[in-house]
Amino acid sequence: MGRPPLSLTDCEVAIVGLGLMGGSLALALRGQCRTLVGVDKDPGVAQMALERGVVDQITVFEAAHNIDVLILAAPVRSIIGQVNHLASSAFYPPRATVVIDLGSTKAQVMQAMSELPPRFEPVGGHPMCGKSTSGLANATADLFRNKPFVLTPPGHTSVRALAIAYELVERVGGRLLVMSAEHHDQLAALISHLPYAAAVSLVRTVLAAEDDQAWEMASSGFRDSTRLAASDLDMMVDILATNRGPVLKALSSYREQLDVLDQAIQSGDVERIRQALTAAREKRAGLFTA
Amino acid sequence: MGRPPLSLTDCEVAIVGLGLMGGSLALALRGQCRTLVGVDKDPGVAQMALERGVVDQITVFEAAHNIDVLILAAPVRSIIGQVNHLASSAFYPPRATVVIDLGSTKAQVMQAMSELPPRFEPVGGHPMCGKSTSGLANATADLFRNKPFVLTPPGHTSVRALAIAYELVERVGGRLLVMSAEHHDQLAALISHLPYAAAVSLVRTVLAAEDDQAWEMASSGFRDSTRLAASDLDMMVDILATNRGPVLKALSSYREQLDVLDQAIQSGDVERIRQALTAAREKRAGLFTA
Repeated sequence: MGRPPLSLTDCEVAIVGLGLMGGSLALALRGQCRTLVGVDKDPGVAQMALERGVVDQITVFEAAHNIDVLILAAPVRSIIGQVNHLASSAFYPPRATVVIDLGSTKAQVMQAMSELPPRFEPVGGHPMCGKSTSGLANATADLFRNKPFVLTPPGHTSVRALAIAYELVERVGGRLLVMSAEHHDQLAALISHLPYAAAVSLVRTVLAAEDDQAWEMASSGFRDSTRLAASDLDMMVDILATNRGPVLKALSSYREQLDVLDQAIQSGDVERIRQALTAAREKRAGLFTA
Repeated sequence: MGRPPLSLTDCEVAIVGLGLMGGSLALALRGQCRTLVGVDKDPGVAQMALERGVVDQITVFEAAHNIDVLILAAPVRSIIGQVNHLASSAFYPPRATVVIDLGSTKAQVMQAMSELPPRFEPVGGHPMCGKSTSGLANATADLFRNKPFVLTPPGHTSVRALAIAYELVERVGGRLLVMSAEHHDQLAALISHLPYAAAVSLVRTVLAAEDDQAWEMASSGFRDSTRLAASDLDMMVDILATNRGPVLKALSSYREQLDVLDQAIQSGDVERIRQALTAAREKRAGLFTA
């Protein structure tokens, strides 16, 4: 074993989990690292990734960490299980391995990462590019392009691990954001997990009305507002279960805001209604214009 | 004056309000009626509609009801004002005029319509095809195509008015739904006004957090969930002010559903969380697939 590689192009990279995220990352990294190794708990998915040239080789998780860069791209609770497995496997050879996870919540993952022996150099990651569709079949090389890609580096990791993680974000075309795991989880609760909870609750509200004409009448507004409700269940259950505090706080703040609107509508005062809507309208109209 | 025309193709049609809805309707009806007359409170908009060939002629509201079909395409409270004006103008010649409004709420409009003298034959309408953009510049002929188009015929209108309203929906490519004004308003509260209130409250929740990194991290999920918050303010204020009862009821039901999610998350019970999400995921995944 020589000196650990300093650039992704010289690395053997393993991606664990070849769903939408892992599969898209493999496609985005094709030709940008020495070897791309794929791992999936479903042997059929791994085989399909190999046959379609998404990865150069396939292997099993137990054999996958003896490489340069290990990318964990599963639902959060699976990632935590994988990190715990690495931490408890003291007999592994002392090869330097950068571990980057793509989990949707970060505090609990980084907590697990902090138990890794020193040969593992961890960096947390979260590309903000969900789709309602999931799985390898929907993976695309441009999934990360111009999308925010958050990194949450722990205090104890190596400069090399950071450099490789930054390079990864750049190579897949992401917009790098660096913050603490706790800060990530608070913001993700506000801009991702709360909108998901809102979408699920909108669908549940219409279901509770038990009036089939509602679905016939639903159009593009309802479609867009509720798109997140169709997100992958395994992913979302793990997110809500591992980010309880920030999500509950966001829900509580959301209900306060609903109360403001509710009271304005109850008042029947047109100017008060307008006032309750104006700041949100101005802010939202100025977003996503690029 | 001969017998009133039985088909739209023989009608002189006036559209009052040449914004997104009225302008799109004019574009969709081009060549499908005898004459298309445009009215807008902004003379510049009316002039632009004439110059671009969106309408054949322009006139002012006071002169616009002496035609075969009068279409009111303004925010709801303006429509109510226009209907009241027609109702109080007893001196108008007794020409038969079908009046179709495109207002986003129907009960208060139909209440105003019920005061019209018999020469006016009213039908309520609501095409479900909002966009976040508004105004004549964003109007397109295909706005109504394959979108739900609700008609709320009052008990006292003519068969001729109904036939012309049905023909209108068909000619612009809408999917016809017929229901009472009250039923429309309940369903619209659930599938349109509540999602709007949810979107506004999502943006307000992030604004209240006062953390600019939240906006940098917001991606496609937040974009779609909050698209409605950028809707035209005049339109939305009128909707919330004229549909208070159904909107407040929908908000109350929505908060009950948020509570179910909140309690599931608080419990930390992964199976309970999954259960709270499953029905909405299945319902939403099966919608809008065509």
